[in-house]
Amino acid sequence: MQNLNEDTITQAVIAQIADTPDPRLKRILTSLVQHLHGFAREVALSEDEWLAAIQFLTRTGHMCNDKRQEFILLSDTLGLSTLTMAMNNRKPPGCTESTVFGPFHVENAPVFALGADVANGAKGEPCFVSGVIRGIGGEPLPHARIEVWQADEDGYYDVQYAGLDQHQGRGVLFADQDGRYHFRSIVAEPYPIPHDGPVGDMLRATARHPWRPAHLHFMIKREGYQTLITHVFRGGGTYLDSDAVFGVRSTLIADWVRHEPGQAPDGTRMEIPFYTLEYDFVLNPAAGSSRGGRA
Amino acid sequence: MQNLNEDTITQAVIAQIADTPDPRLKRILTSLVQHLHGFAREVALSEDEWLAAIQFLTRTGHMCNDKRQEFILLSDTLGLSTLTMAMNNRKPPGCTESTVFGPFHVENAPVFALGADVANGAKGEPCFVSGVIRGIGGEPLPHARIEVWQADEDGYYDVQYAGLDQHQGRGVLFADQDGRYHFRSIVAEPYPIPHDGPVGDMLRATARHPWRPAHLHFMIKREGYQTLITHVFRGGGTYLDSDAVFGVRSTLIADWVRHEPGQAPDGTRMEIPFYTLEYDFVLNPAAGSSRGGRA
Repeated sequence: MQNLNEDTITQAVIAQIADTPDPRLKRILTSLVQHLHGFAREVALSEDEWLAAIQFLTRTGHMCNDKRQEFILLSDTLGLSTLTMAMNNRKPPGCTESTVFGPFHVENAPVFALGADVANGAKGEPCFVSGVIRGIGGEPLPHARIEVWQADEDGYYDVQYAGLDQHQGRGVLFADQDGRYHFRSIVAEPYPIPHDGPVGDMLRATARHPWRPAHLHFMIKREGYQTLITHVFRGGGTYLDSDAVFGVRSTLIADWVRHEPGQAPDGTRMEIPFYTLEYDFVLNPAAGSSRGGRA
Repeated sequence: MQNLNEDTITQAVIAQIADTPDPRLKRILTSLVQHLHGFAREVALSEDEWLAAIQFLTRTGHMCNDKRQEFILLSDTLGLSTLTMAMNNRKPPGCTESTVFGPFHVENAPVFALGADVANGAKGEPCFVSGVIRGIGGEPLPHARIEVWQADEDGYYDVQYAGLDQHQGRGVLFADQDGRYHFRSIVAEPYPIPHDGPVGDMLRATARHPWRPAHLHFMIKREGYQTLITHVFRGGGTYLDSDAVFGVRSTLIADWVRHEPGQAPDGTRMEIPFYTLEYDFVLNPAAGSSRGGRA
């Protein structure tokens, strides 16, 4: 432990964590130290660069609060989120694919009755969303918990508005006994991820844009099934081939269909144009559960 | 850029940063992405573990303020600081070795005249420190800028005391025309690095102690020479073989000599026991400078 040099330091650190009681933590930290040191060696990291990295991480931490998660943005924009999501969501063909969680989910979103307007005042053109939650054999799954969240037409989620004290563009609904769900909201539009912090600096320094294609977030939970965290992407829009967070999957692209004023799917008479989106989800049985069984 | 999976995401991210204007930044980020993804793949990182990492980094950022740098502590305890320091401070034999900077240096430490008491009220047994700043051929180097900082006998640096509005145990002095320096301070004692934050949690989870062997920090600057950032470690003390931040170098260990009450090196009559430390430093010429020349 004395006179460690650039060749011996890595093994010395690994030796120091050799007594870690949790074998999983020991494995993770051992690998982390090897890769962290491997990176520093590969690029011959200078002391100024090391300090710049310390300052970047510090700024990233300082940007995080109960409304903003800059480290998730960093993970998203470096592709770590997509990698982790993909490794943990290998599914049989036919299941709805997962994609990144993103930094804008909040706990305790309000619960709505089927058919309600989850926009709750968020600005945007009206959109009626509906579909069925199914099992892998096509069978409808009753009463799944469906959480949705989305940005408004200006590209902001409710939590990005300082002083807004109500949830907008997010909510929880429960599918009916036939697995059907429907709600009203607003049309999804492309938006830039927050880029006034260190992640924005990184995007600018790497000549990348901060935009995401238009999408609607879903998290669908049902006992006996793997929780599905995904988006539905709006077909025909921009940025589908350059999503800043690497989240687009072609099976998740759907049509938002525009309608002239008239009768909406829920029977409402609409005086302005509106959109409809229909999308069915197929859940993957949880490991160790019989299909459709209660976990 | 659509349908990226665990096998294709890494190359997709690297392709997205291919237009980075600064070639050095491009190289660093490309290597970072490869190693970050390589780590996640090697351990098959779970989504819960990913989230725990996000939360750990967020807490680490939130612990950082103008008095505490938890990311430097993390780098120190994972050996990244020693690795970076070693790669950037390869020196000819005979030069004083460098070691880690640590998180407790502050800008704008007070300047003292030679012989002053830099303890400035910090608690501890008195210690008289002296030595010579030399070039690699043994020649004294006049007027080098010497910055020192240290913890008190309770193991705390001044910046760790909430509400303390003066510098204690730190200061800047200038060597005389013969390269000599001397000042009064207090005896260095072992101390634990701050372990009430995420780095402390990591140390506990890995069965590591947070202690550092007793040491006195030095940063010595002179035109035409490489800045020397180092410690002098107190010989015979504990933790010399298990420094929590991997900083000990045997050439930096010196004797703090204890004396009974009597005359101190500066002529002061001491009524209590005191210590002396004598240590000479040898600076490395800056790259491209003639020895002893002005940069």
